[in-house]
Amino acid sequence: MDTLSSLDAASRALLFTDARTTSNFSATPVTDEELKEIWELAKWPPTQANTQPLRVLYVRTADGKARLIKHLNEGNRAKSESAPVVAVLALDTQFHEFIPEVFPHGAGLKDVFEGNTAKRISDGTFSAALQAGYFILAARSIGLFAGPMTGFDKAGVDAEFFPDGRFRSLAVVNLGHPGENPWRDRLPRLSPDTAVQWA
Amino acid sequence: MDTLSSLDAASRALLFTDARTTSNFSATPVTDEELKEIWELAKWPPTQANTQPLRVLYVRTADGKARLIKHLNEGNRAKSESAPVVAVLALDTQFHEFIPEVFPHGAGLKDVFEGNTAKRISDGTFSAALQAGYFILAARSIGLFAGPMTGFDKAGVDAEFFPDGRFRSLAVVNLGHPGENPWRDRLPRLSPDTAVQWA
Repeated sequence: MDTLSSLDAASRALLFTDARTTSNFSATPVTDEELKEIWELAKWPPTQANTQPLRVLYVRTADGKARLIKHLNEGNRAKSESAPVVAVLALDTQFHEFIPEVFPHGAGLKDVFEGNTAKRISDGTFSAALQAGYFILAARSIGLFAGPMTGFDKAGVDAEFFPDGRFRSLAVVNLGHPGENPWRDRLPRLSPDTAVQWA
Repeated sequence: MDTLSSLDAASRALLFTDARTTSNFSATPVTDEELKEIWELAKWPPTQANTQPLRVLYVRTADGKARLIKHLNEGNRAKSESAPVVAVLALDTQFHEFIPEVFPHGAGLKDVFEGNTAKRISDGTFSAALQAGYFILAARSIGLFAGPMTGFDKAGVDAEFFPDGRFRSLAVVNLGHPGENPWRDRLPRLSPDTAVQWA
């Protein structure tokens, strides 16, 4: 395999510049192998102290989708109905238990998080959201289209799928291939004059 | 430009599978054009209601770096000293002001966020963290190496660079090219049996 120094224009288009958030999906199926492949990419980029607090629930059976879709905002249900797979992205609120395994040279951080729930949830949510960003770009990397959504009853989803209270859902991501009228006109991005400063 | 259906192995290596978090940088400079190019990629992937709450401060002057580095945890200072550029990634706590511009068909969301500061900060932090994930992969896409860190005095950085209180720093990201001994041995990732569930 050649070593690349930067992504070519077509690859940048696939991930960033031409990629679109998809709201209506075709019947083209998504295989479990593809879903595993997303995670084999998304698991690598960095998190705080390598804590990796994101958990993924891939919902792709008819029963699973019915259990999930009833908790979505009404305006979001048809989107997920059309998607072959909906991923629930969640925070493992007890992620610190794995710190001796994933960050052995700083294992004392486990106790810091054990003793400070507010910091644990805040820091964990930040890293889990970073990983949600990686997940969306990993899905695009393997050729799937993603439609992330935050409009759903989080407590309802958590009670439905994570009844022991350990995982807290953060977002759902519809996954598949574009159907008819898959997206709106592209919405504007903020000017760099607004988003970027220099020092 | 050809249209790609998925990233090739070399591109996946650059972004995900071979990429490494960098702690020691070479003297190779990073240009302002490269920094603008990161943002021209990172600005595109999705955020909640297209709110785009992340703000970036690129610190690359000697004076700017001195002002920043004194607020980093001691163990992180040498890393940022060696980096030609350190990006401060921050939440614009008043991001909702732009909703009529960036999400015109749902402009009423501005008032929802105006009236609910806790929801505004929570939702904004989630989207800003998503964007931080996009930012790290965008830096890798243009051939830079990133070293994100959360070990710093956030209140100190905010008072130093964002004295009006509107922006809240979330992470700093060292940017450049690898120097000598640029990274540790790779730390383990959680097993898919831990991170992924199916329904």
